[in-house]
Amino acid sequence: MNPEEFRKAAHELVDWIVDHQARIPELPVQSQVRPGDVAAQLPREAPVTPEAFPAVLGDLDRIVVPGITHTQHPRYFGWFPANATLSSVLGDIAASGLSALGITWQSAPALTEVEEVVVEWLRELTGLPSSWRGVIQDSASTSCLVSLLAARERATGYSETRGGLQAEPAPLIVYTTEHAHSSVVKAVALAGFGKDNLRVVETDPWTRAMVPEALARAIAADVAAGHRPTAVVATLGSTGTTAMDPIAEIVPIAAGHGVWVHVDAAMAGSALLLPEMRWMIDGIEGVDSLSWNPHKWLGTVFDCALLYVADPEHLVRVMSSNPSYLRSTVDGEVTQYRDWGIPLGRRFRALKLWFQLRLDGVQAIQDRLRRDLANARWLAEEVGSTPEWRLLAPVDLQTVCLRHEPADITDPGALDAHTLAWADEVNSSGAALVTPSTLDGRWFVRVSIGAESTSQGDVAAVWKILRATAEGLGRG
Amino acid sequence: MNPEEFRKAAHELVDWIVDHQARIPELPVQSQVRPGDVAAQLPREAPVTPEAFPAVLGDLDRIVVPGITHTQHPRYFGWFPANATLSSVLGDIAASGLSALGITWQSAPALTEVEEVVVEWLRELTGLPSSWRGVIQDSASTSCLVSLLAARERATGYSETRGGLQAEPAPLIVYTTEHAHSSVVKAVALAGFGKDNLRVVETDPWTRAMVPEALARAIAADVAAGHRPTAVVATLGSTGTTAMDPIAEIVPIAAGHGVWVHVDAAMAGSALLLPEMRWMIDGIEGVDSLSWNPHKWLGTVFDCALLYVADPEHLVRVMSSNPSYLRSTVDGEVTQYRDWGIPLGRRFRALKLWFQLRLDGVQAIQDRLRRDLANARWLAEEVGSTPEWRLLAPVDLQTVCLRHEPADITDPGALDAHTLAWADEVNSSGAALVTPSTLDGRWFVRVSIGAESTSQGDVAAVWKILRATAEGLGRG
Repeated sequence: MNPEEFRKAAHELVDWIVDHQARIPELPVQSQVRPGDVAAQLPREAPVTPEAFPAVLGDLDRIVVPGITHTQHPRYFGWFPANATLSSVLGDIAASGLSALGITWQSAPALTEVEEVVVEWLRELTGLPSSWRGVIQDSASTSCLVSLLAARERATGYSETRGGLQAEPAPLIVYTTEHAHSSVVKAVALAGFGKDNLRVVETDPWTRAMVPEALARAIAADVAAGHRPTAVVATLGSTGTTAMDPIAEIVPIAAGHGVWVHVDAAMAGSALLLPEMRWMIDGIEGVDSLSWNPHKWLGTVFDCALLYVADPEHLVRVMSSNPSYLRSTVDGEVTQYRDWGIPLGRRFRALKLWFQLRLDGVQAIQDRLRRDLANARWLAEEVGSTPEWRLLAPVDLQTVCLRHEPADITDPGALDAHTLAWADEVNSSGAALVTPSTLDGRWFVRVSIGAESTSQGDVAAVWKILRATAEGLGRG
Repeated sequence: MNPEEFRKAAHELVDWIVDHQARIPELPVQSQVRPGDVAAQLPREAPVTPEAFPAVLGDLDRIVVPGITHTQHPRYFGWFPANATLSSVLGDIAASGLSALGITWQSAPALTEVEEVVVEWLRELTGLPSSWRGVIQDSASTSCLVSLLAARERATGYSETRGGLQAEPAPLIVYTTEHAHSSVVKAVALAGFGKDNLRVVETDPWTRAMVPEALARAIAADVAAGHRPTAVVATLGSTGTTAMDPIAEIVPIAAGHGVWVHVDAAMAGSALLLPEMRWMIDGIEGVDSLSWNPHKWLGTVFDCALLYVADPEHLVRVMSSNPSYLRSTVDGEVTQYRDWGIPLGRRFRALKLWFQLRLDGVQAIQDRLRRDLANARWLAEEVGSTPEWRLLAPVDLQTVCLRHEPADITDPGALDAHTLAWADEVNSSGAALVTPSTLDGRWFVRVSIGAESTSQGDVAAVWKILRATAEGLGRG
């Protein structure tokens, strides 16, 4: 969808929203549909080619609106007031349109600082102590969990850094590699396993992939010590170098000990839309769960992360809660997604996926992913064939890990300083943005290709910029 | 903000978004602002009266855009591709405009069923096993935590239902009441305390508030047994009857044992904008954390939950992760909100609060909250003075708990059937929506007042409907 198509469609959607809000008082408060009615009206497969916007908008009226209980209705006296003031809807639209990435202060300073200011406004307005500080979460469920985790750690003197909550001598053990995402260590701590019970399994020095024999040895050692191997977190497309842990070899090792295999394919998952990339998930039949984020490379506006599980009944048993005020006569016939994760309340995130797949069509998305893969291969070849530049990892996806290694800089510390200096010069200029990262304790630069608007020309241009900046400083 | 004001503003915002997207290639990729630059441009207090939309829109250009690192820029090669296709932005706008409440299947059947269909589309498109099922989460961080919790429970035979992960004989203990939200029990299980280590403290039979002496006795008994009292979750405005646990009496009891006090004011927190309601937080100085949800009564479009803490450094120490690719030179000078909760990536949720407070102004919000409180008091008086109708709890907030008790229905089971029958008739008719719930094992009906559009006339009308329906069935 191009900007002018968006403009036209968004204006129509705005008018639709206002008209929809105006007719809410005439609609039944409680949705009258029966279990399965909505799903039955949708095709079983995503469209390959784009649909026209009027068809999608029409389906909001035909399929979606009858399937909503209207908490904005003047005669809504259910659960709790769940309003959506039009002023806040505007702010939400602005947030979608800006699509800021809130991962660090630097990634969107305004996202952090506007949040600091407005939570302070509301602290003042609600009479909370002036020394307190606030943050926005998705739900009170998450807030409560976060607070209890904080309480747990205060009571135990930060047990997460030691043995977690666990009773020796038979702790539960989790396995991953040093290239796994930081959220794995965090999850191990938050879930009470304790960081001491996370095993960092050896990886191949070039591919950075988990060495299956090392996993087998680690599990065997734990079993011998009376510990309980519990989970392996395998990564497809590590954040640093897009390393690919070999699922097909990990699964049989884990299966022998009843170990849960979770696959973190947060960024790489989008590539699975390309049949030629499915080699990544060889062995998937023996995996227990896999997550990937359409809000990354696929391009769904943040936030939208998919979690798939082999055994949903088990997940629900762990996550469910069933208070009387949420019980209904259809409980056995429907999916209650509140029991599939942490928050009770959930946004209608599926709409953005539904709109994207219908309005863009699968084929155009696949074409874009293939373009990015080709651009990454092109850059990798350039780096590999240019003197004093080095490729630091295989380029299986869209990320190129590189370093400028001038012959006259032989000291590793000096090379680190050189890397950080030229990367900072590139980034501060505003002309392009690349990410410095470390591998074996040394800095290098990641060039992650895949912005929707990035053409081959942009990749050629950034390569010119990197060379000019680094080689210029190298001679300085 | 009324619908026509919204229509005009939203059209302007749509054009602004398209124009903004068009000029991204000319903007610096990385934000050039320094720590504090954005916050310094915002007033220190929320506006009392409404601001005009052009002022807010102007501030997007003047303050927000310079404070964003543009991941949609064609020369963005940082962290990972963080696209926002315009087709998915449209879907996100539709989700905001529809403002469906995703807490149960019934609250928005379309929200659940469209999600089921699109995650199945993507399962098929990515070649995952056909027996798998999926769900949308906010981030891969949450997906990983959820998966490790599932793994933990499989390895231990559902330890959450027993002692959690904890080592006897000195488990950590959490205290709450039976009227606390279901998410408290869930958080106790997920955080590894174990449900056996949750103490359900006695409540007053009329107010349903925690009895402080009972809390003191429970803590003393645990201390005597060698257990470790760790946290009290006090509720302001319980989901069932808006019960108010007495913070001022709970705090000194907890403080004597170093126990963390978390206050769950999810719905009631909005009322703190009214100075006359601040009695709820008497004793707040001794509390450790408090959460409330602007996405409930205040009316911020879902999702937006505030968590305040007395000691942010402790929270950050528990929640932080600091991988090399997220490090920056300003780390000591700025807030890194990724270290204040579970997900690494976060949406720009502050914008909807910022827009709402500026476009509506605090005074109009306060007026609306007061209107709802008055409407609830009116209904409570009606119920209290009508034969065969009974009020089941004090009406301190905007929820009225009532039951129709015809003289000829004396069997408690028959009365339950009567209650469920008339509530179902009301809800199925589509004319109004109320929520059946239980108290002391018996069904009653909650009338939760506070939809933005609910007038005194609507409350009078629903009372008429309830009487006609219940009294009609009672005579049948």
